[in-house]
Amino acid sequence: MTAPRSALLVMDFQHEIVANHDATMAITNTRRVLDAARQAGIPVAYVVVGFRPGYPEVSANNKSFSAIRSTGRLVNPSVIDELAPIEGEPVIIKHRVGALYGTDLPVVLSAFDANHLVLTGISTSGVILSTTRMAADMDFAVTILADCVGDSDPTVHDFLLTKILPRQAEISDSDSFIGALA
Amino acid sequence: MTAPRSALLVMDFQHEIVANHDATMAITNTRRVLDAARQAGIPVAYVVVGFRPGYPEVSANNKSFSAIRSTGRLVNPSVIDELAPIEGEPVIIKHRVGALYGTDLPVVLSAFDANHLVLTGISTSGVILSTTRMAADMDFAVTILADCVGDSDPTVHDFLLTKILPRQAEISDSDSFIGALA
Amino acid sequence: MTAPRSALLVMDFQHEIVANHDATMAITNTRRVLDAARQAGIPVAYVVVGFRPGYPEVSANNKSFSAIRSTGRLVNPSVIDELAPIEGEPVIIKHRVGALYGTDLPVVLSAFDANHLVLTGISTSGVILSTTRMAADMDFAVTILADCVGDSDPTVHDFLLTKILPRQAEISDSDSFIGALA
Amino acid sequence: MTAPRSALLVMDFQHEIVANHDATMAITNTRRVLDAARQAGIPVAYVVVGFRPGYPEVSANNKSFSAIRSTGRLVNPSVIDELAPIEGEPVIIKHRVGALYGTDLPVVLSAFDANHLVLTGISTSGVILSTTRMAADMDFAVTILADCVGDSDPTVHDFLLTKILPRQAEISDSDSFIGALA
Repeated sequence: MTAPRSALLVMDFQHEIVANHDATMAITNTRRVLDAARQAGIPVAYVVVGFRPGYPEVSANNKSFSAIRSTGRLVNPSVIDELAPIEGEPVIIKHRVGALYGTDLPVVLSAFDANHLVLTGISTSGVILSTTRMAADMDFAVTILADCVGDSDPTVHDFLLTKILPRQAEISDSDSFIGALA
Repeated sequence: MTAPRSALLVMDFQHEIVANHDATMAITNTRRVLDAARQAGIPVAYVVVGFRPGYPEVSANNKSFSAIRSTGRLVNPSVIDELAPIEGEPVIIKHRVGALYGTDLPVVLSAFDANHLVLTGISTSGVILSTTRMAADMDFAVTILADCVGDSDPTVHDFLLTKILPRQAEISDSDSFIGALA
Repeated sequence: MTAPRSALLVMDFQHEIVANHDATMAITNTRRVLDAARQAGIPVAYVVVGFRPGYPEVSANNKSFSAIRSTGRLVNPSVIDELAPIEGEPVIIKHRVGALYGTDLPVVLSAFDANHLVLTGISTSGVILSTTRMAADMDFAVTILADCVGDSDPTVHDFLLTKILPRQAEISDSDSFIGALA
Repeated sequence: MTAPRSALLVMDFQHEIVANHDATMAITNTRRVLDAARQAGIPVAYVVVGFRPGYPEVSANNKSFSAIRSTGRLVNPSVIDELAPIEGEPVIIKHRVGALYGTDLPVVLSAFDANHLVLTGISTSGVILSTTRMAADMDFAVTILADCVGDSDPTVHDFLLTKILPRQAEISDSDSFIGALA
């Protein structure tokens, strides 16, 4: 393997989504990971799911999203204060489940010259799963920090982290990540 | 939703992969689905995972595939005889897990003018999962024929079909698909 | 060909770029085209080239853009008042020359269910050329409204519109477009 | 810029296309470039335009290609003998004008870990132009060897190489390329 050039992705930690999850632990751990990454000079990118007013990005053909139009949800989303981006850290807006399709994240990762993605965020069965499946096929090395991700269904969270995600990603945690940077 | 323009995808039913799975039922059911689709004029595309001799497609950075170089596996793959393509049905060669990344499948689906994908193949946790995650984000309607897919781990198969895949796909089966065409 | 489902793209008509071009005619004609498209219910998407403060999207490896970091140019761009978007019309921010790579334009066009792109904008040798080359390969039918595009070099403009762009696009103009809608 | 990791692309030097062009010079020069690249350990990938029998890849919506179905042209293409690939060099089959859309070239380039593309092939206004426009947006550094590319219209060739392509690519030639490797 080529030497890793890491980027930290902080995904879907936005008000409307955090409100629906028990994300306290994941937020606390991601907070520490963010501090360590910034200190070590690892570039950080945020991802949120969001739409312009009127949802011009939503296809009637899309099973997951076609119903959102009538809800008013996820318009102009913002990252929660505990994990707020600092100057120079881009917030990528996605309109689907995965972070790499239909966004400028590939462009940002190319500008970072990154070949290794460190994933945090909610939920495990949403943005983490889709982003891992596509990132791995794109030849990114992927590390998932297990205590920085969460899911509204703990059974799903455990299953994916033990049976599915390890096939394409290293499963690590916040302490290991921070320790390796020290 | 716009009117569905379906395409049937028959994925990874190739000698080396079938040999590692108990795929008898999935093959039998897919055989019947293929016949019905052809009769109804639904376009069919095959997908196999494969590499040129020397594996020029394999990145040292890819966790799933970097070890394959030393095995000689999956070079110039072919579909099993029971499900052999007929004249005019393309066989798409993929080099990663998902069928839509780094292949000409998007071009073929565009030529088909398809907006709805009917998925069959092995394995549930491999090509079915990755292809569903990406296809849904690309606004394809997705139907998975549950008795035409399989996995070496039945627990994984069941879990994905009940807890994960229904979020982005309709879960159906061969009889329902064939019945709807009649 | 399938029946055209058109979308109008209004590209790079932003303050900093218009200031460097003699775009008066193109703006006047695009103004009329916009009115007609809105009246006819043809969906409209805007494209601008732009960057977040600090240029996190700019690769040191990119010949066209690597020098921009030191200029402060193109940060948080906006469309000129004469062609301002109305409620519900998305403004897509791109970070490269073409409008379809590394943006959410493919997602928006999918939501529009568009298969035919009508192009206006500046410059002919920039966004128009790159977007046409990629859109055609993606199987979009492409129409370029010749009097709604412009280039700082009139020789380049004429050459591309007569020798290069017609291979992949219909070359039309504002009157023909408006007339066909009436 | 990061240190260049080059790959040589040899594009559309296939029997049916060479027959329609005066490509003698380009072939002779590319022959020398190929020898030098192989000697220096620079990875080589070939690109040809081609289709399966029946043209399942061709959309009725595509202006450039929709007429090809009735011609029987470009089915199962092969590289001319003078520039034949050697063992281990992949031949990528494309179905559109550009080499990077709807092909496995991005996967091969990722496996090569390439960030710099050296382009040869015919024609200047076809595969060279489309591939340069997209490769540059993807942050590949691009070098075009001017005496290794050609076009059926010399005016178009000259215009593109002097007015359009230099914006996103270095324009070099076979002697400079070979000299720099020595």
